[in-house]
Amino acid sequence: MNSFGRIFRVSIFGESHGECVGINIDGCPAGLPLSVEDFTADIERRKAGAKGTTPRKEADLPRIMNGVYNGKTTGAPITILFDNTNTRSGDYEKQRAVPRPGHADFVASKKYGGFEDFRGGGHFSGRLTVCLVAAGVVAKKLLSPPPPEEGTGITINASILEIGGEADTEVGLQKAIDVKDTIGGIVECKVNGLPIGLGEPFFDSAESLISHAVFAIPAVRGIEFGTGFAAARMFGSEHNDAIADSTGKTVTNHAGGMVGGITNGNDIIFRIAIKPTSSTPKIQHTLNVETGETEDFSVKGRHDLCIALRVPVVLEAVTAFVLADLMLLEQRVGRVV
Amino acid sequence: MNSFGRIFRVSIFGESHGECVGINIDGCPAGLPLSVEDFTADIERRKAGAKGTTPRKEADLPRIMNGVYNGKTTGAPITILFDNTNTRSGDYEKQRAVPRPGHADFVASKKYGGFEDFRGGGHFSGRLTVCLVAAGVVAKKLLSPPPPEEGTGITINASILEIGGEADTEVGLQKAIDVKDTIGGIVECKVNGLPIGLGEPFFDSAESLISHAVFAIPAVRGIEFGTGFAAARMFGSEHNDAIADSTGKTVTNHAGGMVGGITNGNDIIFRIAIKPTSSTPKIQHTLNVETGETEDFSVKGRHDLCIALRVPVVLEAVTAFVLADLMLLEQRVGRVV
Amino acid sequence: MNSFGRIFRVSIFGESHGECVGINIDGCPAGLPLSVEDFTADIERRKAGAKGTTPRKEADLPRIMNGVYNGKTTGAPITILFDNTNTRSGDYEKQRAVPRPGHADFVASKKYGGFEDFRGGGHFSGRLTVCLVAAGVVAKKLLSPPPPEEGTGITINASILEIGGEADTEVGLQKAIDVKDTIGGIVECKVNGLPIGLGEPFFDSAESLISHAVFAIPAVRGIEFGTGFAAARMFGSEHNDAIADSTGKTVTNHAGGMVGGITNGNDIIFRIAIKPTSSTPKIQHTLNVETGETEDFSVKGRHDLCIALRVPVVLEAVTAFVLADLMLLEQRVGRVV
Amino acid sequence: MNSFGRIFRVSIFGESHGECVGINIDGCPAGLPLSVEDFTADIERRKAGAKGTTPRKEADLPRIMNGVYNGKTTGAPITILFDNTNTRSGDYEKQRAVPRPGHADFVASKKYGGFEDFRGGGHFSGRLTVCLVAAGVVAKKLLSPPPPEEGTGITINASILEIGGEADTEVGLQKAIDVKDTIGGIVECKVNGLPIGLGEPFFDSAESLISHAVFAIPAVRGIEFGTGFAAARMFGSEHNDAIADSTGKTVTNHAGGMVGGITNGNDIIFRIAIKPTSSTPKIQHTLNVETGETEDFSVKGRHDLCIALRVPVVLEAVTAFVLADLMLLEQRVGRVV
Repeated sequence: MNSFGRIFRVSIFGESHGECVGINIDGCPAGLPLSVEDFTADIERRKAGAKGTTPRKEADLPRIMNGVYNGKTTGAPITILFDNTNTRSGDYEKQRAVPRPGHADFVASKKYGGFEDFRGGGHFSGRLTVCLVAAGVVAKKLLSPPPPEEGTGITINASILEIGGEADTEVGLQKAIDVKDTIGGIVECKVNGLPIGLGEPFFDSAESLISHAVFAIPAVRGIEFGTGFAAARMFGSEHNDAIADSTGKTVTNHAGGMVGGITNGNDIIFRIAIKPTSSTPKIQHTLNVETGETEDFSVKGRHDLCIALRVPVVLEAVTAFVLADLMLLEQRVGRVV
Repeated sequence: MNSFGRIFRVSIFGESHGECVGINIDGCPAGLPLSVEDFTADIERRKAGAKGTTPRKEADLPRIMNGVYNGKTTGAPITILFDNTNTRSGDYEKQRAVPRPGHADFVASKKYGGFEDFRGGGHFSGRLTVCLVAAGVVAKKLLSPPPPEEGTGITINASILEIGGEADTEVGLQKAIDVKDTIGGIVECKVNGLPIGLGEPFFDSAESLISHAVFAIPAVRGIEFGTGFAAARMFGSEHNDAIADSTGKTVTNHAGGMVGGITNGNDIIFRIAIKPTSSTPKIQHTLNVETGETEDFSVKGRHDLCIALRVPVVLEAVTAFVLADLMLLEQRVGRVV
Repeated sequence: MNSFGRIFRVSIFGESHGECVGINIDGCPAGLPLSVEDFTADIERRKAGAKGTTPRKEADLPRIMNGVYNGKTTGAPITILFDNTNTRSGDYEKQRAVPRPGHADFVASKKYGGFEDFRGGGHFSGRLTVCLVAAGVVAKKLLSPPPPEEGTGITINASILEIGGEADTEVGLQKAIDVKDTIGGIVECKVNGLPIGLGEPFFDSAESLISHAVFAIPAVRGIEFGTGFAAARMFGSEHNDAIADSTGKTVTNHAGGMVGGITNGNDIIFRIAIKPTSSTPKIQHTLNVETGETEDFSVKGRHDLCIALRVPVVLEAVTAFVLADLMLLEQRVGRVV
Repeated sequence: MNSFGRIFRVSIFGESHGECVGINIDGCPAGLPLSVEDFTADIERRKAGAKGTTPRKEADLPRIMNGVYNGKTTGAPITILFDNTNTRSGDYEKQRAVPRPGHADFVASKKYGGFEDFRGGGHFSGRLTVCLVAAGVVAKKLLSPPPPEEGTGITINASILEIGGEADTEVGLQKAIDVKDTIGGIVECKVNGLPIGLGEPFFDSAESLISHAVFAIPAVRGIEFGTGFAAARMFGSEHNDAIADSTGKTVTNHAGGMVGGITNGNDIIFRIAIKPTSSTPKIQHTLNVETGETEDFSVKGRHDLCIALRVPVVLEAVTAFVLADLMLLEQRVGRVV
């Protein structure tokens, strides 16, 4: 249930306020150079601290426990831990009685019979996305081994498309700051350099696998590929991408890089919708499950005003490990690299 | 690759112009009443023949080969076949040289080395969605055993929300007919009666599993849950659903029935975008891979003007088997019913 | 539950007295020549009719429904059906009250709530091993594409080692005929031509996967690799296989071709124990579950005196599809051949 | 590849001389009491130090990193680490040139391109069986929650049946000590208290799953259920177990508790063969892969004279997690306990 992938298989574990969060990567080929430094850039990109993000800061130093020897992957499972050091569980005691609207508190309590670690969202916490980022770092290295020859590697880039409906993200963010509320956004991801043929006709279409992984990211409410929802308003003759040459390059790329569930050699392009962070500082009226009364409620703790700001690197990461798995499955990456 | 589900596991097979298409359902509990008649209503809903759909008509009589004895499921795998009777392969010979834009012809040829059965889209054909519908029939019966007691069963209803941007689907369709082109649409699905607790925190979130299955339906370009992409423009205080009572009922349902990847007891609501059918009668300019020249191309064959019209029952079906699997996994349905 | 394999994935279905039995093979590479004739030899080897086997004879003509086009696999799932033509269900009515000792009748009734198709053993019947043989034919072709160059293909050969404790199988069989009872036997399987490196350190050791598949064959009671149980009485210095040259060839082969769960390039050798057929013509004393009384019971029907005689080709088959899967996983066989 | 189980899913990781070895358990129900003390007894049973076992001693203190809160499982994945403290990697440098006979050194080097962590057997080391034991502890608690009511829990007991062919294990062991060699043995496992109905007809037969897990234990060369290999020499009328009463109790238990791949409510009984430890102190003649010459070789390091002595608790463990998974799958254990 907490695993994903058929060959390059990631398993996530940990809780926001437990000892650590972590990720296990099975099926990574042997011989891939991997060091703690490889994680720095992407983990920095995910980090809090910028305007609009939570003041909770974690050192986020990855501890590579297994699967790497002499600076290279061994072919055995790779385990990476991140210690939880900056936790304030006191912040969260109240939520037992008043499940936070938009959070998993209530459903977790029902699903796990009240035995769940509820502190800071426990296993549901966005804290665990640092583990996704870590898996993404390994997957990216596999997809684009450094130093990449010109044009040979696969590159994945995600960026904020809009915040609160504004393409100027500063403007969008300021709207939220002004009203002391949280705000949503849209993130776009592009993948360049993929071969033709990844994905399967039905259940394991490239879109199926990518969206499966993407909805593992907390706060995602939608995904669209290529023209996406706009395609619903188009005519076929507008939407079809004519094939331009024998490499499969198309004149337009409305399909977003996949037809029939299979990559077609053009850039993969997709967008995801991120809801506003549920932990808004605004007063909310919600149920106290102990008293049975509705009461006013305000999230104190330390939270992000706009979680979308921290999502791009996470989105790249899940995309990377989906594609790494497909590349291995399609034998485009060797079992030893 | 052609299978989906952990306990209630469906496997799809067949080609548009081969002997048959079919589905195998493993893990269905024993004791569920099942007859050929149970399939009639949903298969009729998917059928072509209405305005805007292909004139190719298939009898679509399900042949239950295995797993049913004395009118009830036995607990062994259920195999259901649909013979292909109305095939005209001659229509498709040309596509080898001129891969149809928007179709899988080109990528399939690259992926399978030219060995794929290309007739009528082969294994990629929308024809196979009749198999998804069949699996959905079984799953629906499992979710809502007849005769359902008042309010106890789980009901799944999908319907067209718009065609070509028009809520009046007749208007939308006429636009396409007028210009002799194909057109896209949006389909919405609602699920009522689910318990709290289906789905898992990360990779097997309810959204992950539903979207995984949904992107197995040909022509889907996007999916959004609850407020979906609109959430990206909302404030947290607007978006959060306050819990109203101890059953988990929320005052609003912006989340679309899931928080933290887990069903919360409210209606699941989601929408999908369907692109316009690629097989438009309009002239297109695309590559002849044999000559290397771009040439004019027009799809003859028999095709749907608006495939979205036939999607609702398919969408219900994939949703049904995802939920049947989760209900079994969460032990809300017994191994013998 | 009725599927096996990670890439080359087989799914079995059907019942002894239903319409058909069948197998679905997903993940078979495209481009493999495959015709009905390919199945003849192995299906003949499994067939009844020889001394010591059941007089029930089936035509056992494989019907390749999907996944093959123009005589070659397409990369889409392959479905193969075998019609059940020679069924006499009347033979089996009595068993509802008196579950046959050594058979699955009683446990199936408990597990499936009495809804199972009990005729002729239903889904538990040895009849379904014809499906395993069919999957094995495809796997063997993949492992050893004809015409094989000298020494390049992988060959799998299983044979009877003893019947009723007698290396002379005729003698062993006659013992059973003389006392009008059924008798067990031992079958040995050898695989030549495998590369080094198939299998994984722990859960997916080559032995784990082979034994998993082998215990899918009805009547198997044990399996041993290389020296097997005899190893328990050996000293380390006797048992160890010294490496002879840089290809990994060992001086002896006590390990049976695998160390640490990984193939070592030497022949795989293993043996399985087959119990005597449960359906003995001898009078047995067992429970009538309706009366609650113990009563005399004798199997009429048509049964094998020594099912071990028909096992070698089934054993080769399951071994073949395990190895085909590992060869694909280890990228020793391409996705297109 | 390093995971096993469908609901109760264990994933193993780590290397003999790396930072730690560990196990991740996904799908364990919430609410199960679990503390470090629960592990003491079984970990002690596996420990070295007794006559015939290696002088390498590890503290083997389990560190429960995740999935437990307030002394009970939370329903989130459980991660348990064991630090490697007593390592002497210097012992192992030589093996690069002279792969130890009977060990995975040579195949690992080929499979992982020389990138494997070869120190002390790396990921192949018997050291990792402490992780299997830990998973077994959790599974056992699930199968038999303390304090068990009389006769309600499931108990699993494995014991040495013979060492070097001697039922008196002291005698068997002394034989090896006398000749300064290692020696094999046979271990038997019994399971009491199981319900009828665990396991599936074909690929997921109870025997298939148990043997799959059992061959994950290093040094196992064979497994037999019930009468096992002796069944091959029996008549059907001898072998069949007559059903004695309506609970499914049989007069004899030659089947070892399973028919048709399904548990029948009687004790499960099976035996496994353990080969003599490959690391014998005796001089061996084997290849130096660097010089290409055969040379004399003697294992120094710290090793077990008879690894079979330490296997029973490991065998219980893997049996326990196979059965825990089946109990969850068959809904005999709840998702919250």
